Amino acid sequence: MVDTYQEKHFAASDLVRDVVIGMSDGLTVPFAIAAGMTGAAVSTKVVIIAGLAEIAAGSISMGLGGYLAGKSDIDHYNVERQRERKETREVPEIEAREVSDILVDLGLTDDEAGPIVKALRRQPEKWIDFMMRFELELERPDPQRAWQSALTIAASYAISGFIPLAPYMFTANIQSALLVSITGTILALFLFGYIKGRITGVKAFCSAVQTALIGGTAAGAAFGLASWLG
Amino acid sequence: MVDTYQEKHFAASDLVRDVVIGMSDGLTVPFAIAAGMTGAAVSTKVVIIAGLAEIAAGSISMGLGGYLAGKSDIDHYNVERQRERKETREVPEIEAREVSDILVDLGLTDDEAGPIVKALRRQPEKWIDFMMRFELELERPDPQRAWQSALTIAASYAISGFIPLAPYMFTANIQSALLVSITGTILALFLFGYIKGRITGVKAFCSAVQTALIGGTAAGAAFGLASWLG
Repeated sequence: MVDTYQEKHFAASDLVRDVVIGMSDGLTVPFAIAAGMTGAAVSTKVVIIAGLAEIAAGSISMGLGGYLAGKSDIDHYNVERQRERKETREVPEIEAREVSDILVDLGLTDDEAGPIVKALRRQPEKWIDFMMRFELELERPDPQRAWQSALTIAASYAISGFIPLAPYMFTANIQSALLVSITGTILALFLFGYIKGRITGVKAFCSAVQTALIGGTAAGAAFGLASWLG
Repeated sequence: MVDTYQEKHFAASDLVRDVVIGMSDGLTVPFAIAAGMTGAAVSTKVVIIAGLAEIAAGSISMGLGGYLAGKSDIDHYNVERQRERKETREVPEIEAREVSDILVDLGLTDDEAGPIVKALRRQPEKWIDFMMRFELELERPDPQRAWQSALTIAASYAISGFIPLAPYMFTANIQSALLVSITGTILALFLFGYIKGRITGVKAFCSAVQTALIGGTAAGAAFGLASWLG
């Protein structure tokens, strides 16, 4: 029952985490690139091309990056699990001592730790589970996660990237487009930060201000740099 | 002793993780933006401006993002720890039952779990530690981590971003610059992927190929899209 609750809890927070990863950068970097290119006094068309190239590159890079991170978590877990299995077979006394050390570290006496060590030695798979979780602090990753994670991050990035870019597509004057993009994106970052704060249980208003500030700082830096060079 | 080992182990892997996060995107996205802008047939100057704007935006967005993630881990941990402290005081019987359930889930009998539950109830802070680690699976985050993480990610991103961009700064012909940038960046991605694979314990050659492939795909997509629109 403990496990089932935790798996559900983790699955939901993994999805939320992926959406947050995708949206954080998806709202910020295309916003900054578009503002930067406007600062460099290029045509609206070049601003849109740079923005779209950024959305394509960013969503592929972050999505595939998320996929590989998920895959390598699985590989890493399997490698470490094989190692623990080997150790419980080849040096069981040392491994049993490690279990005992972990339990003593939790405040148990040696006498209290004894029965647990014995119970785990009776069940090799549970013993390996214990070492994975409490010595190495590794969770068994869900094999489906890698692809889900990749698609969630990429889609969140791409969808959010259109918020700062759309004004350049639908507004004739590039300076008006920049103003609409700044207003709309700062509002979107504020809202996103607020919701993110609510979900993660930190102060929502603080989170909103911080998120908008990151986007504003990135866009300001890109705009300043490009204006100076352009 | 267990804790000290784990803290060192985690600190090293956190640093590596931050460098990997920064370099993965820092090598890929500025590479793709520069290739994309070249495809759109703009001047070398515009390619460089777009690339530098991207490096500024990306390193600020990822660095500050890393900072906030670190901060929110700390806030989240503290909120949950307060909740557990409250629960062990107000509903100790339920919390004790949860400890017992976790231990039974690890393969212990009820009789074996009993003394451990008693030992933890004698030491409230250890009891809360146990619930944080084994029920919520939360580690106490290092308060210094947030800033270290931000600076490591931002610096790794910015330094790697200059690898794809440098050829445009030092090569007169834009097509030659593109070729040098592609060759140099694919090599850098391959090397980076290889070292990353060695560190994380997965097949180094596979990791090298995958990393180069992500960069190539992102740059190819950005180049194709921008050429088509440009």
